[in-house]
Amino acid sequence: MIIVLKRGSSDEDIKRVSDRLESLGLKVHISKGIKRTIIGAIGDESILHYQPLESIPGVEKVMPILKPYKIVSREFKNEDTIIEVGNVKFGDSSIQIIAGPCSVEGKEMLFDIAQSVKESGAALLRGGAFKPRTSPYSFQGLGEEALKYLAEVREKTGLPVVSELMDPRDLELICKYVDVIQIGARNMQNFRLLLEVGRVDKPVILKRGLSATIVEFLMSAEYIASQGNKKIILCERGIRTFETATRNTLDLSAVPVIKQLSHLPIIVDPSHGVGRWDLIDPMSKAAVAVGADGLMIEVHNEPDKALCDGSQSLKPVKFERLVNDLRRVASAVGRNIN
Amino acid sequence: MIIVLKRGSSDEDIKRVSDRLESLGLKVHISKGIKRTIIGAIGDESILHYQPLESIPGVEKVMPILKPYKIVSREFKNEDTIIEVGNVKFGDSSIQIIAGPCSVEGKEMLFDIAQSVKESGAALLRGGAFKPRTSPYSFQGLGEEALKYLAEVREKTGLPVVSELMDPRDLELICKYVDVIQIGARNMQNFRLLLEVGRVDKPVILKRGLSATIVEFLMSAEYIASQGNKKIILCERGIRTFETATRNTLDLSAVPVIKQLSHLPIIVDPSHGVGRWDLIDPMSKAAVAVGADGLMIEVHNEPDKALCDGSQSLKPVKFERLVNDLRRVASAVGRNIN
Amino acid sequence: MIIVLKRGSSDEDIKRVSDRLESLGLKVHISKGIKRTIIGAIGDESILHYQPLESIPGVEKVMPILKPYKIVSREFKNEDTIIEVGNVKFGDSSIQIIAGPCSVEGKEMLFDIAQSVKESGAALLRGGAFKPRTSPYSFQGLGEEALKYLAEVREKTGLPVVSELMDPRDLELICKYVDVIQIGARNMQNFRLLLEVGRVDKPVILKRGLSATIVEFLMSAEYIASQGNKKIILCERGIRTFETATRNTLDLSAVPVIKQLSHLPIIVDPSHGVGRWDLIDPMSKAAVAVGADGLMIEVHNEPDKALCDGSQSLKPVKFERLVNDLRRVASAVGRNIN
Amino acid sequence: MIIVLKRGSSDEDIKRVSDRLESLGLKVHISKGIKRTIIGAIGDESILHYQPLESIPGVEKVMPILKPYKIVSREFKNEDTIIEVGNVKFGDSSIQIIAGPCSVEGKEMLFDIAQSVKESGAALLRGGAFKPRTSPYSFQGLGEEALKYLAEVREKTGLPVVSELMDPRDLELICKYVDVIQIGARNMQNFRLLLEVGRVDKPVILKRGLSATIVEFLMSAEYIASQGNKKIILCERGIRTFETATRNTLDLSAVPVIKQLSHLPIIVDPSHGVGRWDLIDPMSKAAVAVGADGLMIEVHNEPDKALCDGSQSLKPVKFERLVNDLRRVASAVGRNIN
Repeated sequence: MIIVLKRGSSDEDIKRVSDRLESLGLKVHISKGIKRTIIGAIGDESILHYQPLESIPGVEKVMPILKPYKIVSREFKNEDTIIEVGNVKFGDSSIQIIAGPCSVEGKEMLFDIAQSVKESGAALLRGGAFKPRTSPYSFQGLGEEALKYLAEVREKTGLPVVSELMDPRDLELICKYVDVIQIGARNMQNFRLLLEVGRVDKPVILKRGLSATIVEFLMSAEYIASQGNKKIILCERGIRTFETATRNTLDLSAVPVIKQLSHLPIIVDPSHGVGRWDLIDPMSKAAVAVGADGLMIEVHNEPDKALCDGSQSLKPVKFERLVNDLRRVASAVGRNIN
Repeated sequence: MIIVLKRGSSDEDIKRVSDRLESLGLKVHISKGIKRTIIGAIGDESILHYQPLESIPGVEKVMPILKPYKIVSREFKNEDTIIEVGNVKFGDSSIQIIAGPCSVEGKEMLFDIAQSVKESGAALLRGGAFKPRTSPYSFQGLGEEALKYLAEVREKTGLPVVSELMDPRDLELICKYVDVIQIGARNMQNFRLLLEVGRVDKPVILKRGLSATIVEFLMSAEYIASQGNKKIILCERGIRTFETATRNTLDLSAVPVIKQLSHLPIIVDPSHGVGRWDLIDPMSKAAVAVGADGLMIEVHNEPDKALCDGSQSLKPVKFERLVNDLRRVASAVGRNIN
Repeated sequence: MIIVLKRGSSDEDIKRVSDRLESLGLKVHISKGIKRTIIGAIGDESILHYQPLESIPGVEKVMPILKPYKIVSREFKNEDTIIEVGNVKFGDSSIQIIAGPCSVEGKEMLFDIAQSVKESGAALLRGGAFKPRTSPYSFQGLGEEALKYLAEVREKTGLPVVSELMDPRDLELICKYVDVIQIGARNMQNFRLLLEVGRVDKPVILKRGLSATIVEFLMSAEYIASQGNKKIILCERGIRTFETATRNTLDLSAVPVIKQLSHLPIIVDPSHGVGRWDLIDPMSKAAVAVGADGLMIEVHNEPDKALCDGSQSLKPVKFERLVNDLRRVASAVGRNIN
Repeated sequence: MIIVLKRGSSDEDIKRVSDRLESLGLKVHISKGIKRTIIGAIGDESILHYQPLESIPGVEKVMPILKPYKIVSREFKNEDTIIEVGNVKFGDSSIQIIAGPCSVEGKEMLFDIAQSVKESGAALLRGGAFKPRTSPYSFQGLGEEALKYLAEVREKTGLPVVSELMDPRDLELICKYVDVIQIGARNMQNFRLLLEVGRVDKPVILKRGLSATIVEFLMSAEYIASQGNKKIILCERGIRTFETATRNTLDLSAVPVIKQLSHLPIIVDPSHGVGRWDLIDPMSKAAVAVGADGLMIEVHNEPDKALCDGSQSLKPVKFERLVNDLRRVASAVGRNIN
């Protein structure tokens, strides 16, 4: 941690900061420059991360040197983490595709979609049981009924299933039925929920919040990991910017940035990222080319009648064509899709 | 709802959309322009708000005419809503100041701060018991112990107390102790939490999410109101932008915009809005001048030792001076501070 | 154009708007709904684009139906525009790579880099003569001297050259030496400069502004086209967002969005988009996969001594490896790199 | 400047950076921590501001200690700069109001508006002669004719006049007629234009760019000051964010932040900041309360027929009422409006 003092700082100012740092068990290193005095704190920087040093009179700014996350960082663990869901692996050279409807609307529709995306090459089935909708008057999901359908369809198709958890009180229920728990973008900083999923032994897909920096995203993963559950799959799904042509701006540079900073696998959700079915194809190709470990794509057999997010869902026939195209892109960057 | 068809749309395209609208019980009005055909849907637009009409072949864009929120809108209720907390009123000509530490760190410190802010003119005491921290390694709040201190200090000072709820499982507990429940910015779209506080009979302060549009903010208020609880105080606390000189960008224009759209009171939290104690003074004055119904300000007796957000906390003596200055600004815009 | 009147609008309100529209030569269509009256203006909507109809009493909002740009739109011209620079084509199935140093620092370094990027597969040479630097104390470019070097190196290598124009007074000078004029992101709305380059017969690379929406970007292209010069190559180079891990956020979804809206070719500049040399590789692959017609990449033989943007420049050897990798990605999406 | 090396950096890495710093004439200070080695460069940091040290192998990040601007900083000059336009002063305890139409549409309308805003308390008259419009098909201003009208109206009313410069080739012309040159938001980083206005002896109003950080804003002021002209009035006019309820988000915290960093006066333009006439009143009050040295407000006698920005213009009668209200707010914060 580097503490920069204000111009013209007095010896008293310097002493005040030094004493404080030393009282926290850190060694202090003072460097008087021409224009500024700088104080370096040597030792366990984590002690300082949440100390309000800016409030000490005479301090101009405080600059951390180390990263605030630990367990999820590549410094902590250098080799890539591979997460297994049944015999599907996230984080090795393969690219996994998760597909399915935004929300589970019925057993038959779910089975039909599952059957079809499986044939096209999807490795997991997604389907919402609890839906976080902007409006209280929108369809909120079928709840446990949907979870049961997911489990039944898994039995029939062999596809592991993913569904979103919104409330800590539903954790036990959801764990009974699904293979992977999804934490949605709006709950990325629902810290209580993060702590809870950190205590179960199930893989978690953690979506990036709409206004979360990459550091905050990794800090939320750290919340989960800090409780013991290290089976975390990160998911970039678009951030909020001024552009209105797309629902969000898919930040594909987050993929290689996170690959540098963390050992966790990262997938991309182009459906929410752009919010328009006609852009899923190019954005999926770009996500594969940029190095994503997987994709999460909304597929619906009747998008114009979907109870949720129909305008960003692909029809099964388009999905099939897309996966075929993606295989070629994956191969061009040295990876493979089942 | 206006549906704009793509250039060169066929009669079949028009019929497809018309049939769909009519099947939903709406009257259809077709207007063929030179370059585009436009279809107007007449009737209860709310039916259409969550229909994926963009997915129908031939549709270029869909433009809603009405607002998606209802109970919280000024169209629904024209006169300002006044919310009473004890004998403190939010939404009339007075401006209420809520002050206190970011987190309750002990009984004595809380009492000292409460005593002092009360004397300076604060109407309510704030203090966090459960703290939503970016890092799992930061101080997370004293929990129920803090709630007890808040209740005790209320007894002694007469100040009603506000504290944040993060988890639906704590609702009953928090209701036992506090007068006003706060929903933090990171939980603005924690819809399950919104539904729960919608079912109790306690005023709620709902903070705007970091990347929430004003419409989404009002939709979250609608979630609460839809369950029966209409005692909602909105709170602008800064949005996330590219600027890094301040922690967030306080969007003061949200205050008059929301006054036009909704009948609910709205207050401003400059402490989180800018994140720097040395900007609280001018931003508080601006908030009063722009028409806010109240302020929420962090006050700590030893900011440089605070366990949370010390760098944005005012010392009691500065708070006192500020309130005196604010009285003059309030009076200049025809309002008053106790 | 759809004009939505405020709730409870009177006949007088309706007449006021109708009269105004009719006085502009438009036909009026009134539709009284249950909650709102809507007025449609039929005829040449462009008349209305810049009329302050929102200022007419009783008007709630004005919703344009048509797009504000014309010549550059796909409605105006459906087939892709192909722009030729010597025998290099932008906009057909090939993908063109423009490479070179941020700024021309000397003749030899320019020649060395040009020679090497040509061998690796670059189709054009870039090099700044006039540099738009954030600080007045930074290196501002060699000016005409640099232009002469560019022309000389073109003679020797056969590579057409691109350089940035910052000032209308330099237009004649730059036209003497370069093959393609670049308009930088900071000048995307320097409308006088746009008008000037609209009047010469040289291809123009127009970069997207840091905070420009796609519509504004196309409006700036329209400025150029409106003066006669239709040889416009658009360039996505990152937008400004809250994320600080990268210099900007490269908005790759802009590529397919623009392909839908406009017939102009669009290339991507990953160097400025992310600002870090270690991310150029994955972002270039993603740009090719997403459908870009070309790439603009900064290459420097000694990045750590570059006078400008060294931290985002690739060394020639890394550039060569990258182009080889890009050929495979291009081929996977049905395109080719020379 | 602090250079943080990557984890596990070798002695060779350290030497490489040290040698480079020493070759630039700086003293080097090495501090080996437990997890990172940090190198401090002592001496004239400005040498390093534009050195691509991030490109040196082994460097993780580079953290500047000092600010990149000099002449405009409060460190360079501690007392507030007061800029005189005739006998109007910007930067002392008075608050100056600049009012007038977006664009000069005719002599009579300009005179009428000038007369009326003068009576209401405006100190300067604004009026566009050259208009930076998003569309090439919009009204672009009357050019020199407008400048002549401005000069004539100044003769008659005594109000000094402000008008925008868009092109260095118009500088001489505009200097003949106006008292204050305005540089618009879209030209904040048109560096050639900044250099030119830096060489004349006229006050300049420099508007903040839509996506400019406060540091970049001050760097643009530094461009002007570096050429000798220190009569710079900064102007906050809204930044681009995701919120669409207002045209831009007026960043009022920029006012106190800039007051800390710079000695230059700063005014606020609420008209462009929010883009809606019905929000000018509260936002102007907030701007005065937050500490602005002046306001720039668009006033038009027939907003609904204005050729430019009518929807954000006030009518003279509303402007008069507003100025009266602002006098009370100014007085509440210890300042005065003429």
